[in-house]
Amino acid sequence: MRALLLLPVIAFASTAASAAPKNIIYMIGDGMGPAYLTAYRYYQHEGEHPVANTIFDDLLKGTASTSPDDDTLVTDSAAAATALATGVKSYNGAISVNRQHIPIGTMMQLAKHQGKANGVVASSQVNHATPASFLAHNISRQNYNQIADMYFDYRINGKPVADVILGGGTQFFIREDRHLVNEFKNEGYQYIDNWQQLDSLTRAPALALMADVALPAALNATEPRQLETLTSKALQLLSPAEKGFMLMVEGSQIDWCGHDNDIACAMAEMDDFANAIAVAKAYVDANPDTLLIITADHETGGMSLGAAGKYLWLPEVIKGVSATGRKIADELNAAPDDNTALARWLALTKIQLTKEEQQQLLAARGKEQKALREVAVKLVAQYSYTGWTTGAHTAVDVPVMAYGKNSEDFHGFMDNTDIAKQLIKYISSH
Amino acid sequence: MRALLLLPVIAFASTAASAAPKNIIYMIGDGMGPAYLTAYRYYQHEGEHPVANTIFDDLLKGTASTSPDDDTLVTDSAAAATALATGVKSYNGAISVNRQHIPIGTMMQLAKHQGKANGVVASSQVNHATPASFLAHNISRQNYNQIADMYFDYRINGKPVADVILGGGTQFFIREDRHLVNEFKNEGYQYIDNWQQLDSLTRAPALALMADVALPAALNATEPRQLETLTSKALQLLSPAEKGFMLMVEGSQIDWCGHDNDIACAMAEMDDFANAIAVAKAYVDANPDTLLIITADHETGGMSLGAAGKYLWLPEVIKGVSATGRKIADELNAAPDDNTALARWLALTKIQLTKEEQQQLLAARGKEQKALREVAVKLVAQYSYTGWTTGAHTAVDVPVMAYGKNSEDFHGFMDNTDIAKQLIKYISSH
Ligand SMILES: [Zn+2]
Ligand SMILES: [Zn+2]
Repeated sequence: MRALLLLPVIAFASTAASAAPKNIIYMIGDGMGPAYLTAYRYYQHEGEHPVANTIFDDLLKGTASTSPDDDTLVTDSAAAATALATGVKSYNGAISVNRQHIPIGTMMQLAKHQGKANGVVASSQVNHATPASFLAHNISRQNYNQIADMYFDYRINGKPVADVILGGGTQFFIREDRHLVNEFKNEGYQYIDNWQQLDSLTRAPALALMADVALPAALNATEPRQLETLTSKALQLLSPAEKGFMLMVEGSQIDWCGHDNDIACAMAEMDDFANAIAVAKAYVDANPDTLLIITADHETGGMSLGAAGKYLWLPEVIKGVSATGRKIADELNAAPDDNTALARWLALTKIQLTKEEQQQLLAARGKEQKALREVAVKLVAQYSYTGWTTGAHTAVDVPVMAYGKNSEDFHGFMDNTDIAKQLIKYISSH
Repeated sequence: MRALLLLPVIAFASTAASAAPKNIIYMIGDGMGPAYLTAYRYYQHEGEHPVANTIFDDLLKGTASTSPDDDTLVTDSAAAATALATGVKSYNGAISVNRQHIPIGTMMQLAKHQGKANGVVASSQVNHATPASFLAHNISRQNYNQIADMYFDYRINGKPVADVILGGGTQFFIREDRHLVNEFKNEGYQYIDNWQQLDSLTRAPALALMADVALPAALNATEPRQLETLTSKALQLLSPAEKGFMLMVEGSQIDWCGHDNDIACAMAEMDDFANAIAVAKAYVDANPDTLLIITADHETGGMSLGAAGKYLWLPEVIKGVSATGRKIADELNAAPDDNTALARWLALTKIQLTKEEQQQLLAARGKEQKALREVAVKLVAQYSYTGWTTGAHTAVDVPVMAYGKNSEDFHGFMDNTDIAKQLIKYISSH
């Protein structure tokens, strides 16, 4: 009986193997709840009717729940990334360890075992919660140095788990106690730390740390389309991998804009993330043996389009804002006098304030950045009719998009762990 | 050339005809944005892990955009229902007329032309914006009497458009200037106006007006599962229709709870709507030639699960609340003294207030219902960590669920008009 039963099982496994994608591109918009997708569509649109679809709309397949393994229902990025990277829910703060602090194998570790190449791209420091949960294990996301160490020290088949690591974070990789960059270089990693050197990254393994901590916010950055550029580079470096690759790309700072309740900041990050997705989609078109899967780890800010009793949302107000609330605050604080500060406000936001609102803004001048920033983003929210309920995350289900090989496996409602389990199934079958 | 080209077209039309569903059940959760679905899942769940799917989760197919035909981006229920009933966007307030005030044919009018039977079920008055947009035309949703008149006066093949009309609204159908109920009776409609008479509705055509205006809120109602009961009755009355039927069921008051920022009220309405969906799904299981399609017209309230900086949402607080904010306000206002009022608060909400919060509540006593209600729902929101940004609607895309015949035609992202156009295609092909 046993021998007989084994046959169909083997047949099934072998079918699955041939059906699984060779390459997986997994893109995570940190904090990108459903309202972010709607907002980005209307922010993109230029008054034409009907409103044009975004790339998110074109690829949408369903939604995913995000609750962590405790009774809070609202996940942090670490627990969510753990679920998305391992298929196992854990507590808020966990980097791919369970509630008993036992490490849980991640899909990138598995991919490395299977002989695949791995890459991570992030607009945060590369050892931030989301990429960390794919590559390392730690009882706390706050242990940035330990996590960076593990990027080098944790070995599978004698090699670090990630072949390509692109983002920010020199301060964690060049420290007084350890020079991880040199260690990576000695291991054969090409290394750069600025955009001018980008062409010198010609093959994996490679490490690029383009900022001390995170990359500049997309809305403030002098380098345009940072995430798109790094995604493009990662695909170029990974695509020769004979047994295929797994690339994780995080739009890290969508979440940070959400924490700041800064809608202009969020729309600029969404735009860079959308451009990065377009690059990944083009890669799939050219390499049909690739699956592109896109989701978010949770929603941030409780954002709504429409607020304060008005049936109205005004993206054109947001399009007029050319700096994040943090930068506006810094610029206004640096102004030599109130009139210069008000002129800078107008130049940076195009929003004409009432006398009373000008007084509110000026009253926060000279205080710490946070106080002035909060006044600034509140005014932008008020003029654009954007609502926010929190500086933290919320529990609403997040969108799931997919494209390319096996994308039909993702549809309707799923849990965030279901996404991971399905990807792990593909990787196991190779 | 012409004759040759006609052949494949006819072939296609005839294929479409055999493929289209005989019956369509179209269910609209008024105001049911994405967070309402997530909220209902966690509200339903009793601490078991993993969290069980709701019927919404099981049927989820994608999302739909809802913007009206103007530059507000935030729709009202009339413009949204017009889009969902006709496939044409219009201005806020429009009942199936376009911006030039020209009537737009609705899918129920078309269904009647095709010899099908039609039904509408609502927990509001039956001539409220959503059902009205399926049956009538008016330049303003506020013209309730004109809309009620049109339910009787607008004729297709000599008959009113709706064969079955179940909900609330006697005050619009029995007026000093016109007794529409008698006119319907003389036309052969069975008529009831209370739950005890339900069994006496034995065949279409039929009219049931169970309240002066809207049905009682689900959370306060003495009759359990009102919407489920009416949906069941409508299906019973429509199912003998030889050429099939189209039934529209609106969970009308989800939206009203949202406008009040009353989460306990909203969850009770979601529960009644979910139960009504279960009845419709069972009908599809027994009658596979039926399509069940479910969506919302827009989101209401800018609801978020989590608020005020906490990574937490507490549905158990909401489960303890046994009356709507309006009813709590009335009960507290009717209490003979403050101590009785506080005892009633505790009995109705199970929420232990601080001294300061008790003072807030008592300070609003004796004022109009709205003032006291606002304090009450704010306390429930605060204790459950539910966020709200507005007393109006928001523009976030809404969920789309489908089940049964042709349900595979609905997937991914669509516009609300795309849903209508697809349904109209089915109805036309018969
Ligand atoms: Zn996050
Ligand atoms: Zn509505």
